[in-house]
Amino acid sequence: MEEKEQEMHKKFLAEAVKLAQENVNTGRGGPFGAVIVKNGEIVARSSNQVLITKDPTMHAEVAAIREACGKLNSFELKDCIIYSSCEPCPMCLGAIYWARPKALYFAADQHTAAKHGFDDKFIYDEIAVPKEKRKIKTVRLVLDTQEEPFKEWTAKEDKTQY
Amino acid sequence: MEEKEQEMHKKFLAEAVKLAQENVNTGRGGPFGAVIVKNGEIVARSSNQVLITKDPTMHAEVAAIREACGKLNSFELKDCIIYSSCEPCPMCLGAIYWARPKALYFAADQHTAAKHGFDDKFIYDEIAVPKEKRKIKTVRLVLDTQEEPFKEWTAKEDKTQY
Repeated sequence: MEEKEQEMHKKFLAEAVKLAQENVNTGRGGPFGAVIVKNGEIVARSSNQVLITKDPTMHAEVAAIREACGKLNSFELKDCIIYSSCEPCPMCLGAIYWARPKALYFAADQHTAAKHGFDDKFIYDEIAVPKEKRKIKTVRLVLDTQEEPFKEWTAKEDKTQY
Repeated sequence: MEEKEQEMHKKFLAEAVKLAQENVNTGRGGPFGAVIVKNGEIVARSSNQVLITKDPTMHAEVAAIREACGKLNSFELKDCIIYSSCEPCPMCLGAIYWARPKALYFAADQHTAAKHGFDDKFIYDEIAVPKEKRKIKTVRLVLDTQEEPFKEWTAKEDKTQY
């Protein structure tokens, strides 16, 4: 990576870290921040909002993706870059894949997060485990009707693929 | 599982499948539905809302978790059961782990979903791959300030652990 380019990425990452730091003081949520950039401009900046919203899905990355998609009026973050103060958890990584940005940059890694009480390794581990052995009891029950929604979707002619 | 208990779970699952089916007709999003139950009562019912909200994180499970947490005024779904019309994707599985319900039941599996164009296997595969080899370019850049938010969090005395 060219030095100048790296400096730009570090500038946006530093903004994400700054959001994380401010967030601790305001008490809105955990010490995490994320910034989404398109064509060199910030389109969304968000921090973890789990405490203030009482919504466990409002991690910084998810909150920033929702904000950016709202602003860009699209369910895809085409040509966007996500900067996260910390390595994303599995939920946020999944959200990032659905949002389809062109790149992800992060600063602190999961070991630093774990050291301060934010351990998402157990979720990474659970994903790799067969569902019968997961810590949250997980059961598949087959229903006669279970494929009907998919069949109707497949047959629908005026649908938007996403 | 006792037959009577299984019938109860199937009843709630059927409700999730019904939401999925209705969702195709209304065009709000993909053919997915989820219901959250506490003490035998439905506290949230939601369908995939990706198209109507243009928010790629608004899968049925995430939407239902957000609704249930709002109603219960808590970032934890203690003693709740999540019923999903289909096996959760990695994002939703992550969200479920953060929400901490006591159980998850689902009907259709990922193979049925993939047959109809909803293939989340690529995200499951990507999670298992080292970040240098992921399809969305993923770069870690170390910043001098990256641990500051965590240190402030750890030092903060009046924080809510989540």
